[in-house]
Amino acid sequence: MSSPLTLAAIGSFHIGGREIVLAGQPERTTAFTPNTTVTYDPNGHYAIEQAYVQWFRPAAPVTDRPVLLVHGGGLTGASWETTPDGRPGWLERFLRLGFPVFVIDNAERGRAGFCALPGIWDGDPIARNAEWAWELFRFGPKGGYPDRPFPGQRFPIAHLADFTRGFVPRWVTTNDIQVAALIAAIRRIGPCDLICHSHGGELALCAASACPDQVRAVVALEPSGYTASLDPARQRVLLVLGDFLDCDPYAAARTQAMRAFAAALTDRTVANDLWEMADRGAPGHSHMLMMDHGAEALADAIAAWLRAP
Amino acid sequence: MSSPLTLAAIGSFHIGGREIVLAGQPERTTAFTPNTTVTYDPNGHYAIEQAYVQWFRPAAPVTDRPVLLVHGGGLTGASWETTPDGRPGWLERFLRLGFPVFVIDNAERGRAGFCALPGIWDGDPIARNAEWAWELFRFGPKGGYPDRPFPGQRFPIAHLADFTRGFVPRWVTTNDIQVAALIAAIRRIGPCDLICHSHGGELALCAASACPDQVRAVVALEPSGYTASLDPARQRVLLVLGDFLDCDPYAAARTQAMRAFAAALTDRTVANDLWEMADRGAPGHSHMLMMDHGAEALADAIAAWLRAP
Repeated sequence: MSSPLTLAAIGSFHIGGREIVLAGQPERTTAFTPNTTVTYDPNGHYAIEQAYVQWFRPAAPVTDRPVLLVHGGGLTGASWETTPDGRPGWLERFLRLGFPVFVIDNAERGRAGFCALPGIWDGDPIARNAEWAWELFRFGPKGGYPDRPFPGQRFPIAHLADFTRGFVPRWVTTNDIQVAALIAAIRRIGPCDLICHSHGGELALCAASACPDQVRAVVALEPSGYTASLDPARQRVLLVLGDFLDCDPYAAARTQAMRAFAAALTDRTVANDLWEMADRGAPGHSHMLMMDHGAEALADAIAAWLRAP
Repeated sequence: MSSPLTLAAIGSFHIGGREIVLAGQPERTTAFTPNTTVTYDPNGHYAIEQAYVQWFRPAAPVTDRPVLLVHGGGLTGASWETTPDGRPGWLERFLRLGFPVFVIDNAERGRAGFCALPGIWDGDPIARNAEWAWELFRFGPKGGYPDRPFPGQRFPIAHLADFTRGFVPRWVTTNDIQVAALIAAIRRIGPCDLICHSHGGELALCAASACPDQVRAVVALEPSGYTASLDPARQRVLLVLGDFLDCDPYAAARTQAMRAFAAALTDRTVANDLWEMADRGAPGHSHMLMMDHGAEALADAIAAWLRAP
């Protein structure tokens, strides 16, 4: 049993998005439950495209700058909670390190909700299967699913089924919507730093560009996309890469892009770092760095980087 | 500033649902981000129909029986967090009262995720607009949206827009799926009591019927449907009703059904109660009892009812 977690306060909010008004539609009748039929008027006001943020403030913070944890694509803020094999996740880790922690469900995902009204978003949501995740997250070679991972793999492969239950559908056409809601969240939170993962890295770098007054540091775990328009006088970036980076052509291309982004930042931010974990004495990390064995030590190192002057 | 909230542990899990295998589909190409195009094989294993549960254990519990909070239709577990006007919700309230608290996102909602694969679920998700919620949740008379509530309304109407941002789409064909995942959650949690709302009340009563070894008490805030097959030797029920119960024909019919259910239970459970709040010195409650002004006192009374021998 670890020591108690003493919090000053917890809470949540929805933020951002827009209100739309549906008009001119006929009445509809639907059976809500086996016992209840309802006729309703679909016309009216809908809130769409908002984000959801859950927050926790430690009773004895070491800093008044929160970290905002931004999940990856096809996932939710639950990514930062208990790991698939039941270890405390980074939400708890950063709280215990004394940081106020905010966790976002980006617009369209999780408790943020998605837009079910026809004609508002382009395309259909897509689902990611376990085999695809196996490759994309570099758990093992193509065809190795579910039990032949890369040697030395740190992801808790034995709990893969628990991990895949956390997948949620995603649209591929809502990037701008998600960035806008993330910006709204940052402005509501106030000065904060971002820890982001994969597709959330792309969103967070875009949002940080728009919020130089609020965001001083971005820690991006294998971001899927990049912006180089950060404010070199005020913002710094830490890029963190796992292992098995060249295991297939897609992974190799992503790795090359991440390294190029890191190199391009060198002259353009007050400080930036590229941590390739395999070169730092921690081989075996997958794309899901915050769930891997050794995630605790990585969180501690990131916390130290964030607090460094 | 209230006193610190001291927790032994926090965490979350996904539970229940089933694995399906897609086969025989052609490869697909999609643009994940402006920078990344991916060709993927949609065939493979998908986890669907699971629930998400977030949990919190106080450091000094007054009981080892958790409460499991079950949200209503078109909503998520966020219903139990900060109220639309920024007051601490029942998650925090019950933690401060010393209960271990588990909060579910039912299958299909929020962080549980929905099934985006075609042909698995019947029908399309539907969205609830603000005007419909205004009537259904008895904030005010039809046509009174957004600023002419019933006199004495306890719901924080001035923050209606913050409330509607928490709405999520729902299917009307997934009741059995949601009940199954709720049962899986209860079996994972172990002995616990349920506090449930609206459509969640219907799910919870069904799940309690299936789990007489785990669930001893169900507190149902205006449930949308009923089962009377609880175990009379072991299980008890508290039904809680707000005000304005006969404000329109639909509300009146629901109220009649709730009263009939309460009456039918009298001879069939070890104990049951019907609290019509307007008759108990607390007029003005809406359907969203846990968000209304006075929700704190109601939580305290429910906690006392749960702990009564």
